[in-house]
Formats: sequence, C-alpha cells, structure tokens
Amino acid sequence: MAKGLGASDQMLGRVVRVTDAAAPAGPSRRQLIAGGGVLAAAAVALGAGPARPQDIGIADHTRHLGTSVDEYPYGVPSPHEAQVIRRSVPWLTATRESSINFTPLHELEGIVTPSGVCFERHHAGAPDIGPAEHRLMIHGLVERPLVLTMAELRRFPPVTRFYFLECAANSGMEWRGAQLNGVQFTHGMIHCVQYAGVPLRTLLEECGVKPAGKWLLAEGADAAAMTRSLPIEKALDDCLVAYTMNGERLRREQGYPLRLVVPGWEGNVWVKWLRRLEIGDQPWYQREETSKYTDLMPDGRARQFSWLMEPKSVIVNPSPQAPLTARGANVLRGFAWTGNGLVKRVDVSLDGGINWTPARLEGPLLPKCLTQFYHDFVWNGEPMLLQSRVIDETGYVQPTYQQLIDIRGVNSVYHNHAIQTWLVNEAGGAENVRVS
Amino acid sequence: MAKGLGASDQMLGRVVRVTDAAAPAGPSRRQLIAGGGVLAAAAVALGAGPARPQDIGIADHTRHLGTSVDEYPYGVPSPHEAQVIRRSVPWLTATRESSINFTPLHELEGIVTPSGVCFERHHAGAPDIGPAEHRLMIHGLVERPLVLTMAELRRFPPVTRFYFLECAANSGMEWRGAQLNGVQFTHGMIHCVQYAGVPLRTLLEECGVKPAGKWLLAEGADAAAMTRSLPIEKALDDCLVAYTMNGERLRREQGYPLRLVVPGWEGNVWVKWLRRLEIGDQPWYQREETSKYTDLMPDGRARQFSWLMEPKSVIVNPSPQAPLTARGANVLRGFAWTGNGLVKRVDVSLDGGINWTPARLEGPLLPKCLTQFYHDFVWNGEPMLLQSRVIDETGYVQPTYQQLIDIRGVNSVYHNHAIQTWLVNEAGGAENVRVS
Repeated sequence: MAKGLGASDQMLGRVVRVTDAAAPAGPSRRQLIAGGGVLAAAAVALGAGPARPQDIGIADHTRHLGTSVDEYPYGVPSPHEAQVIRRSVPWLTATRESSINFTPLHELEGIVTPSGVCFERHHAGAPDIGPAEHRLMIHGLVERPLVLTMAELRRFPPVTRFYFLECAANSGMEWRGAQLNGVQFTHGMIHCVQYAGVPLRTLLEECGVKPAGKWLLAEGADAAAMTRSLPIEKALDDCLVAYTMNGERLRREQGYPLRLVVPGWEGNVWVKWLRRLEIGDQPWYQREETSKYTDLMPDGRARQFSWLMEPKSVIVNPSPQAPLTARGANVLRGFAWTGNGLVKRVDVSLDGGINWTPARLEGPLLPKCLTQFYHDFVWNGEPMLLQSRVIDETGYVQPTYQQLIDIRGVNSVYHNHAIQTWLVNEAGGAENVRVS
Repeated sequence: MAKGLGASDQMLGRVVRVTDAAAPAGPSRRQLIAGGGVLAAAAVALGAGPARPQDIGIADHTRHLGTSVDEYPYGVPSPHEAQVIRRSVPWLTATRESSINFTPLHELEGIVTPSGVCFERHHAGAPDIGPAEHRLMIHGLVERPLVLTMAELRRFPPVTRFYFLECAANSGMEWRGAQLNGVQFTHGMIHCVQYAGVPLRTLLEECGVKPAGKWLLAEGADAAAMTRSLPIEKALDDCLVAYTMNGERLRREQGYPLRLVVPGWEGNVWVKWLRRLEIGDQPWYQREETSKYTDLMPDGRARQFSWLMEPKSVIVNPSPQAPLTARGANVLRGFAWTGNGLVKRVDVSLDGGINWTPARLEGPLLPKCLTQFYHDFVWNGEPMLLQSRVIDETGYVQPTYQQLIDIRGVNSVYHNHAIQTWLVNEAGGAENVRVS
C-alpha cells in the first residue's frame, strides 16, 4: 500500500480546483441515487403484480433452510466481510513481537470500534496473563501501599466511559509525505470503545498519596515492561484502571486483564497488562519518554511530555481503500476527535480548502470520544479534493500541513494532526495528496 | 440449568427477611475490601524494598516474549474468557435451525453488547446473503415503488443510534415460575448495540406513501419469510433500515446485510435479512402476529399488537451464574431499559422489596438503550433477597410479579417485565426465587 517517499514529490504543491458539487435544484434524490435504470426495471416488474426475487434477477433464500447459529457460541463476522480486518505494515517494525495493527476506519461507522479490529501496538508480544494470578501493586510515596487481585479490583465502585485511544505516531509517516494510500495506514492507529473500571483516583485515595507525591509511574507486565510517567493531577482527574472494553473483558492485545486508561492523551501512556503504579516526586525519564515519544523541533531541541492528542479529523469514505462507485447523491463519512474534550464542529471541503461546509455530527457527542460526521453531497463526476477540519470546544481549529510544519518542522514523528487531503479522480478512485 | 415447573412451588410465597446490609460507620474500604490478609503480606514485602513478582507469589511475564498479535487479523477474546458465550437451551426449540441464543448478561458491563455474544433468534436458520445480490423492495400504496441495492442504500443520509433489542418472550418461562437458574436464561434475550443505517422515514418519503397507506409490512429473506405488520406512525417515527451494528456490518445472525430497527418495540418486529416493505391500509395478520406474539389474558381473550417493551431491570451480578465471593465491600451490577424512552431511576433492595435505595446510573443515558446501574454495598455474610425496579421518564414503575399477574394472569408467554428476585445464601450463591 505504501508509496516510496520520492513518489510524493510530484504531489506536493499540486492543487486541483473543482467546483463544489452542491446539490442542483432540479432532480430528486431518487433520480440522483438510482439514475433511473434500476428504478425503471423495478417499476415494470411491480406494475405487473407482486414482484418475486427472480423477477429482479436475485437469489431466493426463502427456498432453503439457512444454517444453524449454535455452532458459533462466540459469533464471527459475515464471511462476506473478510476484508474488514486489522492490518500490519511488515516493514514498519523489526519483528512480529513488536508490531502495529491498524484499524480499518474506512469500513467502520459510529463511535464503537469493534474489539476484533481495534488498533494495537505491542513491543514484546502480548503476554498471556491468567486473571487469578494477576496483581496490581500501588506503592512509593503513599501512606498505605497496596497489592490488589482482580477480584478485589472488581469490588471497588466502577464507572463506564467511552474514550478514543490514539497513538502519538498516528499519521507519523505523513510528516515527510510518505502518503500511504489508505486511511487504515494514515489514520488507523486509533480506536474508540466503552470501558468499565475503577477511577484511578479511588485507588490513590485508598493508598493515601503523600504531599511530596507529584508523579505516577505506570508499569506493564509484558516483557518490554512498558513504563511511563504521568503527573499526579492527570492521575487524579479522569484516569481509569479498566478491566472491560465494549462490554466484555479486555482483549489480550489490549492489556488483559488490566489497562490504564488516560483519556485524551497519547496511547503509549495507556499502559497495558498494568501491574504496578508507583508514586514519586519527579518523572522517571523512562525509555518511552526520552528516546521515544518526544518531538524533535526545528531548532533541534526536543519537546517532552507532549501527551495531549490535539483536535484531528479524517474522511474515511471515500478514501483510497473506499472509492466512490457512482455519480449523483453520495455520503461522505468521517471521524473527528480531540483530547481537549468535545468536538464542536467539523467542516468539510470538496475543493481542497477553498470552500467549507459544516458536516452533520451524529450523537452521542461525548468528551474525548470519537465523533462520527456525515456530509451528504452530489458528485458530478469531476475530480475533488476532499478535506475535513475539526473545531473543538476550546475553539482549537485543526491546522493545515503548512501551519503545522511552520511551527513543528518536519523532524517529528509524533503528533501529526494536520488536515488530510484525498484527491478523487474521475473514476471515483481516491489518492493521498497534499495541497499547498 | 432449568428446574422443573413443580420445583417452584416451594419457592412461591417464600420470603426471607434480612437486614439491609448498609455500610457500617467504622471500617474503611481498605479493611472491607481486602480484610487485611493480602494487604499485610504486601506491606511486609514492600517494606523490605521494591517488590518483585516472586515476592508476592505470582508469575513474571517480563522474562519471556509474549506471542505475536498479527496472526489474529480479526481479534478474539482472551482464552481465559472462554465461558463468556451465547448459550442456547436445547429443549426450548425443536430443531437447531429454529433456535435461540442467550446473552451472558452476568459477564457484561456497559451499554455495548459485544456482537459475538448478542442474543439472536432465528426461525429457519440464518441465510448467507451476498451483499451484491441483496435488494430491498418498497411497494404497495406508494406513488413510486422502489428496489434498492445495498450500494444505493449506503448513499442515503445515514444516522447512528444505540438501541436495546429485547425479545417479547424474554423472561417468558418465568410467568409460571420456571425459575431458570441463570440471568442469561431468565433475561438474556436482549442486546444493545449502536446501529448505522437510513431512517425508514427517508425511504418512505422517497416512495411517497399514499393517503390510504396506514400500515407497513416488513418481510425477511430467510426461509421463514419472517413477516410483521407495523403502523405507519411508528415507521415514520424512529425506525431505521440498518446495515451496521457496533461499528461493523451486521453479523449474519443479526440480519446481514440489512435489518429493520424498531426502537423500544419487541424484537420480533425487527425483521432481519430485510428484503421487502409493503404499504397497505390494514395489518396483514401474519403468523407471528396471530398464533404468536399475542398475549392470552385471564378472561381468555388475546391482546394483539402489544409491541412496546415496558420498563424492566435486572441485577446481573450477583446472580446464579455469578456468586458473591467475599464479604465486605461489593458492587451490585445491573441493567435497566424501557421502550418508552429514558430510564429515570433504578431502585435496589437487598431485603426482598422492604427497603429500597436508588442505584447509581452510569452514562451515557440514551433513550431506548440499555442503562448500566451500580450499587455499592457491604455484605456481612447473611442471606439477601436482591431486587431492582426501574422507573422511566413517563413515571412507569416496574411491577412486582403479583401486580403483573393481577392484571395479566399466568397464560401469557410474552411481555413479562416483573421484578426479579435473587436469593443470596450464606455461601454467596444466588438462586432464582419469587417473593410474595
């Protein structure tokens, strides 16, 4: 799916100007949707009496029994949806035990990412931890250190919350114009599920954080011993120690049996297979917050502890993996999110950012959660340059690539939240391009 | 799991009175949760320096690589959760092609039912319909009959919505006191997912319903040709023609590629594998709305078209499949719902309905959607009679069995929404009982 870096050169600075394909005043949606062919044929069949499937040339499934469902006590997707899977990029990591699996955003709709296709990143494989043997230890600058079993954690007052999780490296390959041709790869390091778990604040109050305790270290039980520092204010704000996602217990690759949920902040701090929380008076400067997850700025200095996932949005349909298939009425589908809280508005452009129209936001609108947006439009068959930009409740407007690069340069890997552009050609195919 | 009907006799009228186990003023949650044993051991280890897993007797997964995730492009639950599955009751239906698979409510948390364990009922097997060959026909008393492909349906303006689906027969075996010992079987004919699809109103407006058109017939493409009549007012209100659930396309057993969503109404009218919508001037009186899905009242007459799913709630944890395992602080978990719209309040009783305490409702609170409730309580080891009752936004209070039977008698199969009682014994085990 990936183009070489060089291939992007001809795209950079390319601007295709097309007229905004607003709905003309004349034809009804009926004409726009079906063109007339399908409808005309149907009308003939219907005019002659009740239509049978064979009248319109399709199979009749009422003539034979379907299959039993009992053999799938845990159900699976339709075999016709075999293309809706997580996908990895083999050249991206050195070993299979350290890999990344991207969410097929172009196939999804709504705020629930199915657990089976949720983005995941692991650094040393996914450990297989039995819930009975798992422990969470809380220690350091606390009055009463604590070791909890899973059964004990389930006895603390729980909450349920929808949150998006985005990797700081999402869209990271785009900084220098890799232009991967698929939204699954440009934006698929994200998912959104409903968690149940215990507020971290509850556990810390149980332990009694000492006045000198200003930082929290979270450590995973995997072979990478994934370890990150967090300020105590965030720990006491909205973090969760979660044991379920989308109704059921966490999936293995999402941290079974326990993960830290850090709403609105980069996925790397959402420590999986959570086994230890330590309270200290300063950050620990672990590997993943020094050599990784820092942002090299244009002046050569590195920005550290840039946890917040800034407002971002992307059109997923049409996109390179999901071409337009017909002229006339169409629906543009996309997702928006912001670590600041609520998505306030999403604008859509069909002409590369010249004209913008507010998209339709679908509820429920929840803080630090994906927001589905739709834009109903008419495609006249001419090329389009599709863009979306989100504005969140703080007034932050998603930047263009030029605005972002003016401040951050092109040395960064993380925190690319620039506006994405898809070039739709006359055949309906979409391509990852950048406009100046 | 099922007891014979006779076994319920000794339970009927049985009342166990226990004191409401409210939290005493003395001990902290720490003492209540852990009792002291685990904490004391941990404190020793921690006092001697940083604790290692072997200090507290658990495996150390940091010593070896975990397994790769790439081999599961569509992820599966942890192998430690193999018990979280849909379950059927073999004696309930004559053939496997007509069976029922119940949701394991006692294992779930939050408003998302994982698609893999969603309740489903099928009458003639689940047909395997290719999306390219599927058609939806809309005809009858309309100005412009219409046949739509799936690709065309995807081009109408969509919406996304969370809705519960409950079978009218949920808890049906309890009318005469079957007292199945598991909430999966007493209340598991329900699920709640987020749908995306087209408002039915949009499609009907496209076709132009004639003034005489007062009823809608929905027909499935399965071998049962499941067919139900609905009043046009409901069709124009909040029904959807849905193609996704929980983010991805419908599962096969949930109607892939298309199902009718009829919010707040009995699951039987949510026609799966939807292929035909006909507009008429009166109901069709199909099999499933005459010999089935009518309610035989005490006077021998049958109540017909009783679509609304009335306010209902149930405690899922503890319950017969999920016993209490420790004294002290505990969490009572349950679900509430109402076809009328929003859940307003849920009360919980630990003493069989003598004393009631409002439970904690967890958001998001959405109309015609499951609502998760929690009640934090302290168990002193004495028997309890657990009950929950929901009050919805219309003021409707979930009835006791006696109140329901006074009006409906015991001839009904459908629409049992009485208050459920679990008897928790001294060992923590729970049993399905009824109190007078």
